[in-house]
Amino acid sequence: LNGMDRLIEAIEKKQNPTVMGLDMRAEYFPEGFVQEGWDIGDAIYEYNQGLIDAAADIVPAVKPQLAFYEMYGMSGLKAYEKTLRYAKEAGLIIISDGKRGDIGSTAAAYAAGFVAKDAPFDSDFLTVNPYLGSDGIKPFTEACAEAGKGIFVLVKTSNPSGGELQDLIVDGMPIYEHIGKRVEEWGAELVGEHGYSSVGAVVGATYPEQGAALRKVLPHTFFLVPGYGAQGGSAQGLSGCFDAKGSGAIVNASRSIMCAYKKQPGVDYKTAARNEAVRMQQDLLSVLNGQIG
Amino acid sequence: LNGMDRLIEAIEKKQNPTVMGLDMRAEYFPEGFVQEGWDIGDAIYEYNQGLIDAAADIVPAVKPQLAFYEMYGMSGLKAYEKTLRYAKEAGLIIISDGKRGDIGSTAAAYAAGFVAKDAPFDSDFLTVNPYLGSDGIKPFTEACAEAGKGIFVLVKTSNPSGGELQDLIVDGMPIYEHIGKRVEEWGAELVGEHGYSSVGAVVGATYPEQGAALRKVLPHTFFLVPGYGAQGGSAQGLSGCFDAKGSGAIVNASRSIMCAYKKQPGVDYKTAARNEAVRMQQDLLSVLNGQIG
Repeated sequence: LNGMDRLIEAIEKKQNPTVMGLDMRAEYFPEGFVQEGWDIGDAIYEYNQGLIDAAADIVPAVKPQLAFYEMYGMSGLKAYEKTLRYAKEAGLIIISDGKRGDIGSTAAAYAAGFVAKDAPFDSDFLTVNPYLGSDGIKPFTEACAEAGKGIFVLVKTSNPSGGELQDLIVDGMPIYEHIGKRVEEWGAELVGEHGYSSVGAVVGATYPEQGAALRKVLPHTFFLVPGYGAQGGSAQGLSGCFDAKGSGAIVNASRSIMCAYKKQPGVDYKTAARNEAVRMQQDLLSVLNGQIG
Repeated sequence: LNGMDRLIEAIEKKQNPTVMGLDMRAEYFPEGFVQEGWDIGDAIYEYNQGLIDAAADIVPAVKPQLAFYEMYGMSGLKAYEKTLRYAKEAGLIIISDGKRGDIGSTAAAYAAGFVAKDAPFDSDFLTVNPYLGSDGIKPFTEACAEAGKGIFVLVKTSNPSGGELQDLIVDGMPIYEHIGKRVEEWGAELVGEHGYSSVGAVVGATYPEQGAALRKVLPHTFFLVPGYGAQGGSAQGLSGCFDAKGSGAIVNASRSIMCAYKKQPGVDYKTAARNEAVRMQQDLLSVLNGQIG
């Protein structure tokens, strides 16, 4: 099976197009959570284990954001490495969110780090930045083809100023659509049994119209959709990122699940995360005719 | 002093606009170099120490490329962390080449990891990708202003397919020039005593005409120039990246210095690296009227 087939089947099995972001920060821990003798990496790993235990039967995938591990140095990265292993043992698909991108030989090194066979930071997917063009992408697609993994290339990001570059018009078409069409090309030889290639696209939930337009012109490109919840994207708004069968996209939620305990007084963080994951699943299914696949 | 002033003064002091890339790979080690009991990280760190010892009085800066540490997992990252400390003790400016880039809150986490005060991976500069626009840059410039550090934003990269996106024309001007003008804006409040801001630009040596054109339109933007040597850029070709005083740019060389021993039979790797660093310095000075500053 290719990488995207594995993700799609995990989503169908759990009937939930949600990826749980694992982006823990020191200031997010519930009072009393951090025990004596733990360093920050210990605390993050402990917290992540709890989130995974609580939601592994509901969500098909997790997305650790590398920045939030790197900011804590080697201790944070140790937590990242251990979290990858724990998530894998729990049967979850792992999307490492690093937005890496470089010239060919360097991109090959990133691929070796994250998505190649025997990668030390063994992830099913890595997010990748397209600014350097095809020769910065090819080493990833080659490694992914061999290992049954995939990448998600930034196309239209969820942040307010993403449009400064991405919305510039060239030949009557915005840059993000030019990049989207490249993504279709880059994935052309990696289309799986479910019709989507292992080269996906990041398409922000905060731009519903663009998401729906991209869905139409990128028929073989699966979307990773950030921006639901904390950043303001709604299930209704992002429904256009899905195809007619309710497939074609997976929606990320980070803080809204990780820190769900803040909005559920008296409920422990694991149960609160599970409650929110279920609520989000129902919210998404409600705009997808109640079923995926 | 702001970050770019510190880099410029280090270049002037050593009369050498060269940054030594530290991108070691297992297959580059000289025969017999790796000792029993060393893991790959031990070997990389040992090799880097040798390069730094050999060239610290000649080159003002080093540039570890993060991909080549991440590909070796935690062992590689430990070597990266130790190399940062060793380079700092040797008085070298450190440019961590990670090409990071994300939405604002995540960019702030990367800044905390690499260029903020007390960053665990304490670097003087970090390379940054502009695809996400201003709100992905601002957290870096704020952290750099506070810590006296800087960033280099990808503008025109050295690889063959960099132009797929970067050379697209919008309003009669290529994308890379649009990004270059943003870089001038992002650095407007961080211009130092030497006239350059702490927000620099990556401008590949493999595109001499574009480099020279950018030099003219980006008067406050210091250039980090990759692509000399192994990638085909010559000193003559990249001279247009410098200003009339021979300042305004620093040129990276990685493999040509790291692996100089391969072209100097019978010479140990440290001496060979030093020889090549001196040769490169002379090569660059020869097209800069023999002096910088």
